[in-house]
Amino acid sequence: MTLKEGERLDDLQCHGFRILQNPSFFCFGVDAVLLSGFAFSGTRTGRKEKVMDFCTGNGIIPLLLVAKEKASFVTGMEIQMPVADMAERSVRLNHAEDRICIYGGERGDVRETQRFFDAGSFDAVTCNPPYISENRGLENPETVRNIARHERTCTLEDVVRNAGYLLKQGGSFVMVHRPFRLPEIFETMRRHQIEPKRMQLVQPTARKEPNLVLIEGIRMGKPELKCLPTLVVYEEDGEYTNAVLKIYGKMGI
Amino acid sequence: MTLKEGERLDDLQCHGFRILQNPSFFCFGVDAVLLSGFAFSGTRTGRKEKVMDFCTGNGIIPLLLVAKEKASFVTGMEIQMPVADMAERSVRLNHAEDRICIYGGERGDVRETQRFFDAGSFDAVTCNPPYISENRGLENPETVRNIARHERTCTLEDVVRNAGYLLKQGGSFVMVHRPFRLPEIFETMRRHQIEPKRMQLVQPTARKEPNLVLIEGIRMGKPELKCLPTLVVYEEDGEYTNAVLKIYGKMGI
Repeated sequence: MTLKEGERLDDLQCHGFRILQNPSFFCFGVDAVLLSGFAFSGTRTGRKEKVMDFCTGNGIIPLLLVAKEKASFVTGMEIQMPVADMAERSVRLNHAEDRICIYGGERGDVRETQRFFDAGSFDAVTCNPPYISENRGLENPETVRNIARHERTCTLEDVVRNAGYLLKQGGSFVMVHRPFRLPEIFETMRRHQIEPKRMQLVQPTARKEPNLVLIEGIRMGKPELKCLPTLVVYEEDGEYTNAVLKIYGKMGI
Repeated sequence: MTLKEGERLDDLQCHGFRILQNPSFFCFGVDAVLLSGFAFSGTRTGRKEKVMDFCTGNGIIPLLLVAKEKASFVTGMEIQMPVADMAERSVRLNHAEDRICIYGGERGDVRETQRFFDAGSFDAVTCNPPYISENRGLENPETVRNIARHERTCTLEDVVRNAGYLLKQGGSFVMVHRPFRLPEIFETMRRHQIEPKRMQLVQPTARKEPNLVLIEGIRMGKPELKCLPTLVVYEEDGEYTNAVLKIYGKMGI
């Protein structure tokens, strides 16, 4: 397989999985890795059969969930065709066509989920969505990077409403987001009958404010939130903490 | 002043303030101290003129807010008369009658706030409420201790609705609670036009799950939650952490 201009091929160091990335679009970050570590870890088996990944980007979350044997089959939706195309080629590169399917472009529009999938037909929905509200932040040009970061084509409401549609009763919704939107996140989840059940804040260091929050909700779940110990990413000396090394463990950084 | 049976007199080690406690009722805990440290610390002055403390118990929060010069005048409401009586005697003991007023018994019933106070007449409301829902936990006898811990006479809804009534626009609501009720807390606050603006989780140690959450909301505030670094109470060796020593600082443990 030949790389397209600007692309590079990275080793996920987990069961030999690799991923295509294009730094001029964006590369996957610690948030995607933490999301894949957090997902379903509160359940007995720690895995799900049929998983949907909204806003899948270059497919990092489907690839990690399959590589970590946390999902039997993952569908990824990505509205930006050049990005979806890259994800699709990563799937083929890993011979994972029987475990991952990418819906790209119009078919990757989270707002149109009901056109392509049946209600209650998934065991889990994961999402690493755009963090910044439509009405916030500077006016930026319509680049691939900006569409991935701002709620241009997919709002928090879109993600949660469509997750509620796809999930069977007792199904799991897992998302990473910014803590400053936590009240809105909880309210939106509850409005769509997804009860917040597990939460973990993520801080760069022990003294710095959390900049990420991992959340798992259960469709039609009983109210009671389990708060995990706050995850600290770096020691004061800049080394990864043991807690984070454990999550990256199978990826062997 | 003579102590009643079962009572003891403790030194708050802050400007000479002392407090009456009765261990057979309950004694103030780390939650009250953390609440008084957290309150208003996000504002420029760090202090408020007219403050209401719901479920004031033995008056620990009014005493700490006044001792720390975080409030000019605090009213405390306590429905249990023997406890309100003890709070009242602590106020006199500290010669703080011009800075603290205790409403006890029927006049200390948070559900009846509207009978005694005008809407929008307070700059801040604080509360260390009963943590356990009415419909949860074992059936316990109607002791002073159980009424303070269970939502028998005062639910989360009662606290937030009446705080919303008392607060002027831009006024501050500060509460300590259990993290497992966070989604319900945020939802209840927003329903009563108190926007969650600051939050801090509290963990016993760096590895243990958070067991307290400190929350500040602003009446008619603009949505955006500031998450503070998680507060860890004890080092692994059982000593207080520096962060907590700093809060207790003026109390000089």
